[in-house]
Amino acid sequence: MALIVQKFGGTSVANIDRIRNVAQRVAKMRDAGNQVVVILSAMAGVTDNLIEMAHAASPQPDKREMDVLLATGEQTTAALLAMMLQSQNYAAVSMLGHQVRVQTDCAYGNARIVDIDSRRLLDLAQKGTIVVIAGFQGCDPAGNITTLGRGGSDTSAVAVAAAMQADMCEIYTDVDGIYTADPNVCPQARKLDRVSYDEMLNMASLGAKVLQIRSVGFAKKFNVPVHVRSSFSEEEGTMVVNEESSMESLVVSAVTHDKDQARITLKNVPDQPGIAAKIFGPISEAGIVVDMIIQNTLSSGETDLTFSVPRSDFARAIKIEKQVMEATGAEEVYGDDTIAKVSVIGVGMRNHSGVAAKMFQVLSEANINIIMISTSEIRISCVIDEIYTELAVRVLHKAFGLDVEE
Amino acid sequence: MALIVQKFGGTSVANIDRIRNVAQRVAKMRDAGNQVVVILSAMAGVTDNLIEMAHAASPQPDKREMDVLLATGEQTTAALLAMMLQSQNYAAVSMLGHQVRVQTDCAYGNARIVDIDSRRLLDLAQKGTIVVIAGFQGCDPAGNITTLGRGGSDTSAVAVAAAMQADMCEIYTDVDGIYTADPNVCPQARKLDRVSYDEMLNMASLGAKVLQIRSVGFAKKFNVPVHVRSSFSEEEGTMVVNEESSMESLVVSAVTHDKDQARITLKNVPDQPGIAAKIFGPISEAGIVVDMIIQNTLSSGETDLTFSVPRSDFARAIKIEKQVMEATGAEEVYGDDTIAKVSVIGVGMRNHSGVAAKMFQVLSEANINIIMISTSEIRISCVIDEIYTELAVRVLHKAFGLDVEE
Repeated sequence: MALIVQKFGGTSVANIDRIRNVAQRVAKMRDAGNQVVVILSAMAGVTDNLIEMAHAASPQPDKREMDVLLATGEQTTAALLAMMLQSQNYAAVSMLGHQVRVQTDCAYGNARIVDIDSRRLLDLAQKGTIVVIAGFQGCDPAGNITTLGRGGSDTSAVAVAAAMQADMCEIYTDVDGIYTADPNVCPQARKLDRVSYDEMLNMASLGAKVLQIRSVGFAKKFNVPVHVRSSFSEEEGTMVVNEESSMESLVVSAVTHDKDQARITLKNVPDQPGIAAKIFGPISEAGIVVDMIIQNTLSSGETDLTFSVPRSDFARAIKIEKQVMEATGAEEVYGDDTIAKVSVIGVGMRNHSGVAAKMFQVLSEANINIIMISTSEIRISCVIDEIYTELAVRVLHKAFGLDVEE
Repeated sequence: MALIVQKFGGTSVANIDRIRNVAQRVAKMRDAGNQVVVILSAMAGVTDNLIEMAHAASPQPDKREMDVLLATGEQTTAALLAMMLQSQNYAAVSMLGHQVRVQTDCAYGNARIVDIDSRRLLDLAQKGTIVVIAGFQGCDPAGNITTLGRGGSDTSAVAVAAAMQADMCEIYTDVDGIYTADPNVCPQARKLDRVSYDEMLNMASLGAKVLQIRSVGFAKKFNVPVHVRSSFSEEEGTMVVNEESSMESLVVSAVTHDKDQARITLKNVPDQPGIAAKIFGPISEAGIVVDMIIQNTLSSGETDLTFSVPRSDFARAIKIEKQVMEATGAEEVYGDDTIAKVSVIGVGMRNHSGVAAKMFQVLSEANINIIMISTSEIRISCVIDEIYTELAVRVLHKAFGLDVEE
């Protein structure tokens, strides 16, 4: 007997028939003698509809009230699943954020979980009751409803699993696991059986489609084993777990790509103290996140400085830098929003040198020019011309031995 | 400056434009310097949709979970109105049943309000914040969500007004007040400026379309002045208030009718002790409410016993009585579901004799046969053949001086 937390996303509870499918899965897990706690998202599309309604009601909806509104989505699915399980003679009860006492800070719309009172949950689970928790929601110390941001139900699930010291946190979604690359781009991509927390954290573009990245940080912190799998098949998915020695044999686990990239160059910036603040201060104040920065110091004592931003912020960022050209002393500001970032990721890199060199060589052999480079302990990213994205992913995927074995 | 509770029903908040209309009304009341507390129903149709979803999920939805589900309807409208008011620069905050602390008993689906914590509400109102409360919902001592039954938002409003000792509880609905008779039946019907709590309580069929009858009992108990009015016009509606001496001049205030009636007769029942239990016990166990009962004791020592039930329960009631014929000793069981009840109501009756006699005479002059009669302190009801309903209402309305003054 084990304590299992199961989380079902919006597509898995999109209508009554899908919820019935969820009820079957939950019942099966319970029938096997396990204690089961379920976390649900809102029906697919409902949250967007509610946001639309809010914007019809107010040009800038108050964040507290937005959370009150959005919380109805998960409340609906939790009640429906609980009554469905009961009609099948399972003891089941729905619980909302404030009833579980998922205590958060006061950051409406993007609240952080501070504490979960696991006593009542454990008590119910031990009695054999299936607890169906409305995901995505909590309450602040004053009892106001808060929500955890897009994909927050994943974080709800991992946090509940952590608080209850569950044996497993299953995340049911509409894909069947984490892949070595985007299968739409790289048909040779394989489903990973296991991936480490750190790898997931570095796989933003691949991973975020499947699992809210914040939940991975939570899982790592509390060492919660997470199983990402499809709610539409019985196949095993991908286990997201602590780094294990067996993983080290694989140098690179995945190749990711991200087309949401643009770069901006400031030409001939004087290389003076305080210049970075003048360049990046206004960008940061505008809420734009800078990813990579490179600078070429010229013999003249000046610098060409290039940085990358999300493509949707490109126009704003260019405008800001042109406005502060006088302050930064840049001769010219120009940019390019037809770039992409490809990355290779793997905990095995820690113990293997030469991964970067190999990556550069593989791209070079494919005649792909590298525009910018950044690295972390377990990731190497190259910015390239957008048109080469798919090619780059495929050649890297093959070169690092990730292609499906025929 | 006064403290005003305003309640808006489902048709008044049926969509964003209607909610905008509500926001204007609320803002106007606030602009006039009043403290305002608003109680909202769910958008018209939403509660029915949720019930339908629940029945798709479970043949007999669990009552606790049904309340969790239904409570989302009022949560939605409360959040939308609060954000709308805020976008118009009014201080406003939504509050749910458990946040107000509308404490109820544990009777899911039909809970009774036990207590309302008015301190926070008063505090907010005194600071000028418009408090927007989700109607229809409360929570039991264990923190479970409860709902107050159909029309429960009226009771929420009156209870909040009572707890806060509000100066007025305005009930905004899709009709403009209480009429002396159903205007569809009696074109001469007039809107009443005032009606007493007791009269409302006796006007079930006329009044219940406008105001949940339970809320009237609450208003009477705590002496809350209620103003029933249309959310689509600026006209004054009907004040529901304590009986006043000025009311006594009007003997009859209203003529009501109710076609949801059927009668069942048990022929030649032995007139023995315990017979009533044998006849009405099984009916009561089936959850059927018996309205009137008459019996004709015959010289033979036997009795013809006739009683009335809601028309929708007619077939079941007949079946039950046929099943227990042996036990009751009835020779025959037969019935009729083409009857109707007309009533005249008025607190003035208390001090005027002869109202019943006049009613019988008026009906008789119109050649309408009276099948059954029942009376209360301020009401006289006659069961007649259904086809004479409209005629009876009109002749009584005229005879008791209620017709519109030309």
